[in-house]
Amino acid sequence: MRSASACRAVVLLSGGLDSATALYWARSRGWRPAALSVDYGQRHARELASARAVARSLGARHYEVSLPLPWLASSSLVDRRKRLPDLPEGRIGKGPIPSTYVPGRNTVFLALAVSLADAAGARRVVLGSNSLDFSGYPDCRPAFVRAFERVAKLGTRLGARGGALRVLAPLQRLDKAGIVRLAARLKVPLELTWSCYEGGSRPCGRCDSCKLRARGFAAAGVRDPGVDR
Amino acid sequence: MRSASACRAVVLLSGGLDSATALYWARSRGWRPAALSVDYGQRHARELASARAVARSLGARHYEVSLPLPWLASSSLVDRRKRLPDLPEGRIGKGPIPSTYVPGRNTVFLALAVSLADAAGARRVVLGSNSLDFSGYPDCRPAFVRAFERVAKLGTRLGARGGALRVLAPLQRLDKAGIVRLAARLKVPLELTWSCYEGGSRPCGRCDSCKLRARGFAAAGVRDPGVDR
Repeated sequence: MRSASACRAVVLLSGGLDSATALYWARSRGWRPAALSVDYGQRHARELASARAVARSLGARHYEVSLPLPWLASSSLVDRRKRLPDLPEGRIGKGPIPSTYVPGRNTVFLALAVSLADAAGARRVVLGSNSLDFSGYPDCRPAFVRAFERVAKLGTRLGARGGALRVLAPLQRLDKAGIVRLAARLKVPLELTWSCYEGGSRPCGRCDSCKLRARGFAAAGVRDPGVDR
Repeated sequence: MRSASACRAVVLLSGGLDSATALYWARSRGWRPAALSVDYGQRHARELASARAVARSLGARHYEVSLPLPWLASSSLVDRRKRLPDLPEGRIGKGPIPSTYVPGRNTVFLALAVSLADAAGARRVVLGSNSLDFSGYPDCRPAFVRAFERVAKLGTRLGARGGALRVLAPLQRLDKAGIVRLAARLKVPLELTWSCYEGGSRPCGRCDSCKLRARGFAAAGVRDPGVDR
């Protein structure tokens, strides 16, 4: 674990705009982050390729974990036969838990990140969840992140030795436009990130995730190099 | 997820005495448990074979997840080149965190169990941690289990809908003799369980886990059919 020991934060990296911004944010704090991506059988491998490219752009160590969980098939993000939600603009991020919810996903992701951090001696785990996510997904809310931080404090070697493993969600209060602005300031290579739920060669422009991204860039007044390429 | 939907508890099952007792305890409560085993690259596959046999003895649905995490190599339970601890009797379960500690193991195991429970609509997650474990391992202590229950409440679909996913450690207050007595009362097929850290055809009798098991059976006045076969 020589190289990992040198890292001072573990950042969950999906390859999307939010987690790429979280990774660059951690670097901007001087933490020399390691990135962790989890392949849980999502609809496409496109976002994992983006995660690799984003980690490489920073020279960050990148861990990829393959974790096919048979019971996740109930999510439309995993089961390709299910139709992705296509909500009218005003309803995105509102209402009941969407079919793209993956049961316990952030619980599993954070657990893996805490395990890696505890093994590597890193004192921080960072995830890119934000105000838009937690309107729909229970495992993105600030109270959830705080509860997981307590688990990380109590359940690790670092915690047992009197230290504390922080679990940080730096985008927590930001909307998509705020994230785009922060990403631009941190010089995140936006053209490498991938937000679309589909796995085509170009973003579909129709899924919830594409719509949210487009609206964020428009509100921030920033051109999206991930679409206009 | 038809069959899993019928389960009312998810039990983490390693194939050892403790988790087998936890599984039979859940059944005794009338919960129709599903068992979950995780292969994280432990020293031997012997205990996974035991887990399968124990689950089969109950007719419980059994999920096996393969999760090789490169950073777990620092534990002597995973790295076969490392010497297993061989403590003098009096020191087992006392002192610093042993080299058999696997960083964040129960955090990851519980996260997977919570994910499965949330997908299957089960309302309970059960693990076999007990008073001996938590003298050495931070992620077995009652406060850790309580903290994880809060994560499970906040981070799941069930929790978001006003329910609560319980995380239960029914052996928490028991020592090894107490567990042996409970196992005997619940008619756990003790001959199917495997506690030895080594993966031979018979338990080594020398590792910490063998010594603790032997002492527990002796104190309970029960013959160990897993050794005397």
